[in-house]
Amino acid sequence: MAAIGIIGREGRMGQAIAAAVEASEHKLAGGADKGEDVAGLADASNALIDFSAPAALEGNLHAAIGAGIPILIGTTGLEDRHHRAIDEAAHAVPVLQTGNTSLGVTMLAKLVREAAGALGPGWDIEIVEMHHRNKVDAPSGTALLLGEAAANARGVDLADNAERGRDGHTGARGDGAIGFASLRGGTVAGEHSVILAGENERIVLSHVAEDRALFARGALTGAAWLIGREPGRYTMEDVLGL
Amino acid sequence: MAAIGIIGREGRMGQAIAAAVEASEHKLAGGADKGEDVAGLADASNALIDFSAPAALEGNLHAAIGAGIPILIGTTGLEDRHHRAIDEAAHAVPVLQTGNTSLGVTMLAKLVREAAGALGPGWDIEIVEMHHRNKVDAPSGTALLLGEAAANARGVDLADNAERGRDGHTGARGDGAIGFASLRGGTVAGEHSVILAGENERIVLSHVAEDRALFARGALTGAAWLIGREPGRYTMEDVLGL
Amino acid sequence: MAAIGIIGREGRMGQAIAAAVEASEHKLAGGADKGEDVAGLADASNALIDFSAPAALEGNLHAAIGAGIPILIGTTGLEDRHHRAIDEAAHAVPVLQTGNTSLGVTMLAKLVREAAGALGPGWDIEIVEMHHRNKVDAPSGTALLLGEAAANARGVDLADNAERGRDGHTGARGDGAIGFASLRGGTVAGEHSVILAGENERIVLSHVAEDRALFARGALTGAAWLIGREPGRYTMEDVLGL
Amino acid sequence: MAAIGIIGREGRMGQAIAAAVEASEHKLAGGADKGEDVAGLADASNALIDFSAPAALEGNLHAAIGAGIPILIGTTGLEDRHHRAIDEAAHAVPVLQTGNTSLGVTMLAKLVREAAGALGPGWDIEIVEMHHRNKVDAPSGTALLLGEAAANARGVDLADNAERGRDGHTGARGDGAIGFASLRGGTVAGEHSVILAGENERIVLSHVAEDRALFARGALTGAAWLIGREPGRYTMEDVLGL
Repeated sequence: MAAIGIIGREGRMGQAIAAAVEASEHKLAGGADKGEDVAGLADASNALIDFSAPAALEGNLHAAIGAGIPILIGTTGLEDRHHRAIDEAAHAVPVLQTGNTSLGVTMLAKLVREAAGALGPGWDIEIVEMHHRNKVDAPSGTALLLGEAAANARGVDLADNAERGRDGHTGARGDGAIGFASLRGGTVAGEHSVILAGENERIVLSHVAEDRALFARGALTGAAWLIGREPGRYTMEDVLGL
Repeated sequence: MAAIGIIGREGRMGQAIAAAVEASEHKLAGGADKGEDVAGLADASNALIDFSAPAALEGNLHAAIGAGIPILIGTTGLEDRHHRAIDEAAHAVPVLQTGNTSLGVTMLAKLVREAAGALGPGWDIEIVEMHHRNKVDAPSGTALLLGEAAANARGVDLADNAERGRDGHTGARGDGAIGFASLRGGTVAGEHSVILAGENERIVLSHVAEDRALFARGALTGAAWLIGREPGRYTMEDVLGL
Repeated sequence: MAAIGIIGREGRMGQAIAAAVEASEHKLAGGADKGEDVAGLADASNALIDFSAPAALEGNLHAAIGAGIPILIGTTGLEDRHHRAIDEAAHAVPVLQTGNTSLGVTMLAKLVREAAGALGPGWDIEIVEMHHRNKVDAPSGTALLLGEAAANARGVDLADNAERGRDGHTGARGDGAIGFASLRGGTVAGEHSVILAGENERIVLSHVAEDRALFARGALTGAAWLIGREPGRYTMEDVLGL
Repeated sequence: MAAIGIIGREGRMGQAIAAAVEASEHKLAGGADKGEDVAGLADASNALIDFSAPAALEGNLHAAIGAGIPILIGTTGLEDRHHRAIDEAAHAVPVLQTGNTSLGVTMLAKLVREAAGALGPGWDIEIVEMHHRNKVDAPSGTALLLGEAAANARGVDLADNAERGRDGHTGARGDGAIGFASLRGGTVAGEHSVILAGENERIVLSHVAEDRALFARGALTGAAWLIGREPGRYTMEDVLGL
């Protein structure tokens, strides 16, 4: 049983993680929000989970280093200098930074990379996702993450090969294109499919999120896995042992 | 057993219909292509199937009237004046004009109209389709036909409510919107899904075309059904008895 | 705003309905469990929802009649004599008895009946469902309800035509058969697909339940709809205006 | 360009392979059916493809060895002694024996093995397949092949863990079970889905065969790949470079 400290405790993800901790074998060390004492929280915790803001990142890393405990970072909107700070901190403590804490999506990205690499560009790749009616951007971050996995496996740049928002007279599909399509409606928590379409056969690799709490549970699983590891920068794939 | 005459015999659909006739209980009366004698073909036929060009439409209708036989019209790109000519001809012989000759798609459109009408605009509608990599326009004509069915059931205009090609910062979904998304890849003959997404539940109504020959078979079924009917303008829904 | 009385308040569905009432424009009049005063509850309510036990049914109907209010009955395991009692009560008050309170499943059953009837027995029907790992029976009640809808539309008896649990050397599919298959795993709330498979094309009609609370919301919608209706026996299809 | 010899030339697969050869860069060396001269065929070929019968296997292997050319074996119903004969022959020439020549299914089996191994038995595995109405056995050989991949990854025996043909009062799903369900209808060429269902999330890995000719093309691809290899026993995974 580990004591988990949550930075960004009152945010949507912070609350969900607190609920996940309550439902787990672990316990909540406490939380810190903007302007609150992260160093004190770190001293009372076995691991930190940070879903706050980029501006707070450096302070949070220092708190983890000061207490000698690992930190999982799910904050989005990070820039190069944040990644450099993370790399630096990873010399002192275990750090895991990720844009998606779902174990299933992590697994899916691995499978997509493998299939895209083995089948080659002769198999057309399309990525379609559906989310609830209130989502304001398209494609989803997870769809782009899956597209990156496919592009990396092919050794190409996603930005140069993405076909997004097809509408009207598009012409035939580009060779080597990776297509994206976004559906919105109802209360869908999140569904993603990566279609690899060859000659008269298709492989479809999908992930279905039944609720949004699973991302909180994944963050908790990741943070608990970090405890006792060597200093270093880890990924969700490491958590899954991939 | 009926004798079927094909106008536009050497086109892609004309050839497919000829193959469908060969494989059926019916027989091929012959074919006519650009500049050839349609009146003679009509005299040798029990029904005509026309997949030629809008410019030929009036001549084809006259040939059917002259021979006193029904005509099924699958030609695309028709304008208002063509539809008026069809209405006129339908006083003399049975005429069926349609943008999709698949029995399954016809059925699906009926179900979509019914579900969209009964569930109301509180259920968000999304339409997603996949076709082979060489298709040059998006969304497919069938996707638009399904969208029209939904819009008609709600008593709204599709053009005012369609959300097509979502990409980037789209904002939340519009109230009453009907969304479209298009996937392209491989050799897919044609798949369409209409999703009605409510509060924590979804209805998904789909059609899968396993090959393109089914559209030829549907045209043949429709033409055979017309034989012996009263003059009038019919639809594929009538063929299905809907 | 209506006052809703729940019979079987402490059961799994009773609790879910109470939560649905709290989240709605309506209010909770109270609840009654085994041995408690249903007549008093009825007097304080504008409508009753009964998810208790067959043995309590007659008393519950009398309470509704005494108070002159409608009653929605979701209790399962009813026998012929219970249905006769319901028919009797429906002369005095509005009554709705149903095995599935989801609006989406009600809609789906209607669409299945229509498609199965129009397409005829030449289109093979298969029904596949998935539920969580702890479900103890197969196929689900909803799958059977959908199968009944298809069989009724064909004018045949489901029991004579069902193919369940295919395994081993089964031989070719029976003419006119309605197949059932059941998947179990994880935490799936409930997914059903009815496949109508013709010559080189398929129609697939599906329902996805994202959580189990939607059945409680559907019961509440049904009960509220009954208020102010003429006495009679109603169905969920009536609630949807089908 | 290679010269391909087909053993079992007049069978369903033999004919499909001959058509695939015609449509490819390769050429047909000829065919041999029951009682015909396989040694002569081998002398005229760069590779043999064998879809005949187990009883003919040894003679076919000898013909390949005699001509010093590779052989791809798709014959089903092989027993231990046949596999021993193949192992023996693989000392002299390249041999590839497989129950499924689709590149897509080969890829899918690899992904299933990887996902099942990484996610562990806490994720429930279900395998569902659909085939045309005339298929006489269930589950399909490919479904069993995918189940074997999952069982191997978990280090368990499939026969001890398979749940097939669920019907009636089944009780809750067994821990570590691998479930199978079979749908039959219409003209479906073959669709397989492997569902891995965890806590509130699912991964679904699917293969869709649009026609049966792809199995012939896969056999041809495999045979052509064998030409010029070292003697040894190869698999379709080797062909894909997995």
